[in-house]
Amino acid sequence: MENPLTSAPKPVIAITMGDINGIGPEILAKALASRQIFAHCIPLVLGSHSALEAQRALAPALPSATVVERSALNAPLHEDRLYLCEAMQQTPQLRPGVPDPAAGACAVAWIEEAVRLCQAGIASAMTTCPISKDVIYQAGCKHTGHTEIVASMTGVEDYRMCLFADDMRVVHLTGHLSLRDALDAITAERIVSSARIGHNALCKLGLKRKHIAIAGLNPHAGENGAFGTEEATIIAPAVAQCREEGLDCSGPHSPDTIFKRMQEGEFDLVVALYHDQGHIPLKLIAMDLGVNVTLGVPIVRTSVDHGTAFDIAGTGRARENSLIAAIRLAAKLAQA
Amino acid sequence: MENPLTSAPKPVIAITMGDINGIGPEILAKALASRQIFAHCIPLVLGSHSALEAQRALAPALPSATVVERSALNAPLHEDRLYLCEAMQQTPQLRPGVPDPAAGACAVAWIEEAVRLCQAGIASAMTTCPISKDVIYQAGCKHTGHTEIVASMTGVEDYRMCLFADDMRVVHLTGHLSLRDALDAITAERIVSSARIGHNALCKLGLKRKHIAIAGLNPHAGENGAFGTEEATIIAPAVAQCREEGLDCSGPHSPDTIFKRMQEGEFDLVVALYHDQGHIPLKLIAMDLGVNVTLGVPIVRTSVDHGTAFDIAGTGRARENSLIAAIRLAAKLAQA
Repeated sequence: MENPLTSAPKPVIAITMGDINGIGPEILAKALASRQIFAHCIPLVLGSHSALEAQRALAPALPSATVVERSALNAPLHEDRLYLCEAMQQTPQLRPGVPDPAAGACAVAWIEEAVRLCQAGIASAMTTCPISKDVIYQAGCKHTGHTEIVASMTGVEDYRMCLFADDMRVVHLTGHLSLRDALDAITAERIVSSARIGHNALCKLGLKRKHIAIAGLNPHAGENGAFGTEEATIIAPAVAQCREEGLDCSGPHSPDTIFKRMQEGEFDLVVALYHDQGHIPLKLIAMDLGVNVTLGVPIVRTSVDHGTAFDIAGTGRARENSLIAAIRLAAKLAQA
Repeated sequence: MENPLTSAPKPVIAITMGDINGIGPEILAKALASRQIFAHCIPLVLGSHSALEAQRALAPALPSATVVERSALNAPLHEDRLYLCEAMQQTPQLRPGVPDPAAGACAVAWIEEAVRLCQAGIASAMTTCPISKDVIYQAGCKHTGHTEIVASMTGVEDYRMCLFADDMRVVHLTGHLSLRDALDAITAERIVSSARIGHNALCKLGLKRKHIAIAGLNPHAGENGAFGTEEATIIAPAVAQCREEGLDCSGPHSPDTIFKRMQEGEFDLVVALYHDQGHIPLKLIAMDLGVNVTLGVPIVRTSVDHGTAFDIAGTGRARENSLIAAIRLAAKLAQA
């Protein structure tokens, strides 16, 4: 049954299991067992049925999955039901904590299938459980991670790695680059496009105020040029251009207080100029609620903000909070 | 009366009032009114008596100060008493929120007097209230801040800017440099000396475990060289040298999780490779408890971790917590 208060049906979210020997199956089973995600979406797991069922002792309330073939997914899916598609993968034996290229190959196949389901309109968004860069490399995958696979399959080069956690939202100018290369990649054009991408995300989230704060690069944002010139030569002109375009933008702000100010409600989103400028604060305060979001690609993709955690796989100690937050955010962005 | 459980008398802490038109007088009055600092030290304010007394409406419990001349400070000071020395400064009219070079000149004179009192052994440590870089520049001071004045007067060039907040402690390789210059200043030698300086501080604090974590520079500490080489060429060799010297060191650790791990108790101190790598996380979570510490100089100097806040000076909204934490830390480091 659809919620009578809303006109839209619940979105189908394709959820990839990730590396079956990491904590993916466990957090997935726990998230599905909590049942709160069924209020927001129809979950369609891309993964191994036996790996999911193996978690039942850790998550006794895990609903039984309706296992479907890829070809059956063209028909409408029912609300309040859990779907699982193995996408024709022969899952290797489950060995928690043991990296296995065969498991890496399955993980990549499920990601690719999720992208295709989004592109076909069968899923409204995708949420990913963690994979190991090393393991997928051993499995022959030429990409370094989810974001790169999604970008490649959707033909997008100018995507943005973002972290969202409650009312803290950061769009990063660049992702996995050395800090020196990241500094060379800072351009006014890239700052402006990051602000545009962030603005669009805030629109999708339905925020009335969409105040975007642009971080400075140097200590205290250069303290009027005393240490560093990028604020004057690159960042301030970019902020001016954003405002000319009608974006509600300010900056450059001192990097060491901008995140506190966002936490206190002054800003709705921060554009961070390099990976760690945004990752250090968000990972520190997000607790288990951080969600990794790929923006700038034509599909909605969210992810947990942690790795495979091979060291605790199979122990029952993994927490599902980030996955639940990622699925809820995917559903919200998908319904915009 | 000395505490009968401890053999050492309470240390005299020279506390500079900072810019009288900022929030210095207010946080000082509030901190002294709370009286908790008298349990840890004998406070000796370097500042304006009338500026302090002007705060009495905001801090009714402010003890009356014994106003002393500099020459009277050679005699022993009494516990449970508040001392104030104007150091022969003619304080200009108090104008909260209005920058005034004459106030800047006083602030600098008080800092210089505090350093001399520490050097003479009359004070065991100094704690500073905020000054404005712009205002002291207008007052003819050639230094850019407290740290530079202290370093210059003690003849030290290789000092370190540090932030302490509860059990979170960060030694920064460099301070007020542009990020590009800071990257160029990263050397194994500087990392090792930072770890030594940090180790000494942990010794003074009386910590049994002194586990120092060295941050990486690049995202995920370079992920085995995939993005950035400094971890392999500079940082790892520095960690090895630290361990050879007998320091309890580890790293390079991923910058975006190292502070969370310290917060959870895994590390006692982090060596951060540039200003914002440490300032962003500490300022985010320290709330009002962050203390700025200058290490590597021959005197103990702590400071609040905020500025003059001219915008709220005189409104009664300033919080004294960081100043209390700074005085308590100074007392603790001084008694080592």
